Amino acid sequence: MNKLRSSLSMSLDGYVAGPNQSVDDPLGIGGEQLHQWLFPLEAFRESHGAADGEVNASTPVAEAILGGTGATVMGRNMFGGGPGGWGEEPWQGWWGEDPPFHHPVFVLTRHAREPLELQGGTTFHFVTDGIESALEKARAAARGKDVSLGGGANVVQQYLAAGLLDELTISLVPIFLGGGTRLFENLGDPVPELDQVEAIDAPGVTHVRFVKTRKATPIR
Amino acid sequence: MNKLRSSLSMSLDGYVAGPNQSVDDPLGIGGEQLHQWLFPLEAFRESHGAADGEVNASTPVAEAILGGTGATVMGRNMFGGGPGGWGEEPWQGWWGEDPPFHHPVFVLTRHAREPLELQGGTTFHFVTDGIESALEKARAAARGKDVSLGGGANVVQQYLAAGLLDELTISLVPIFLGGGTRLFENLGDPVPELDQVEAIDAPGVTHVRFVKTRKATPIR
Repeated sequence: MNKLRSSLSMSLDGYVAGPNQSVDDPLGIGGEQLHQWLFPLEAFRESHGAADGEVNASTPVAEAILGGTGATVMGRNMFGGGPGGWGEEPWQGWWGEDPPFHHPVFVLTRHAREPLELQGGTTFHFVTDGIESALEKARAAARGKDVSLGGGANVVQQYLAAGLLDELTISLVPIFLGGGTRLFENLGDPVPELDQVEAIDAPGVTHVRFVKTRKATPIR
Repeated sequence: MNKLRSSLSMSLDGYVAGPNQSVDDPLGIGGEQLHQWLFPLEAFRESHGAADGEVNASTPVAEAILGGTGATVMGRNMFGGGPGGWGEEPWQGWWGEDPPFHHPVFVLTRHAREPLELQGGTTFHFVTDGIESALEKARAAARGKDVSLGGGANVVQQYLAAGLLDELTISLVPIFLGGGTRLFENLGDPVPELDQVEAIDAPGVTHVRFVKTRKATPIR
């Protein structure tokens, strides 16, 4: 079966966004440093229409983030719902007219809404009946490719706690944010079990890839 | 000048000890899993009198932890002071008659006490006038070798926040402890800055080595 995989950049003190996050500053104070390893890469710059760029040990990780999946699942805040939801407005999120996904995106929300078809093959579907339903819909829409799990942290936590996340890549960035949104909390009891598959030493970042532990215990 | 360096095993959710730590269970629930990468190694087993053992990508990290330093600084709890201190008793800590240090150890405490000389070259010195004094004494005693900073987490935090820690190795273990003692908090404002030097992909653990960022800013 196609896998559900997620890739997140985390500070050494465990945050995926800095303090004082808001709709205007979704990464919080200092949070943009989490993604500095990605921006100079050719793999990133090409996907944003720029010609030059580096190739380094982070390149395969960037390529896995930027391509190869057939659908995405994300939370409402990552779509751009904001703290108050989108209410009555025909809000198109903060991804612009031509979002970088180029495939179906399933947005977890409590507010039902018609699908939103944008340019470049991205259609946002709004799922109100929970994480398992969203994953099922995304798997069906992905045409055999893997499904990417975007953020936010709370959505990743829910899939991880439910044992539904097959693969997780943490890009550990050598900074301290001192506050913000922690990735690894609210993981349930018992906590999920992961196996380390690979660690990559790259300029200014360490990428560690984990998979869900396979073992002959009852499915939780 | 000889460096101050520390090496700690941390869970993916940022803990260096599990929940419900006590004098009887200093690593807390599940905390012993943090050190599983170390125990099978030849470098570890030889230092504990056993003949067999593995050599793998963790070996250089274990060797750096187990040797090469000329003095150690640690907190009272790591010595074995316990929550109530050692009071009137001639308490020798929980390291036994022949502690594995084989060099001078400087214990940060509020309670003055005569040095405690044990077998194998380990003498515990009790330092009551702060972290800078302890480091100065340890540097002088280390005979040109590096100084090792033991734990606990709060002691490492203090040295890190003060900009006194030259090198830090985190052995990131793919487990969730779900609670316990966090390593990276109380780091001051501004937070310390580190550069990643190296990441090592080893069986069941990723070791990442950091050094204090060198830059032309005023010393805090």
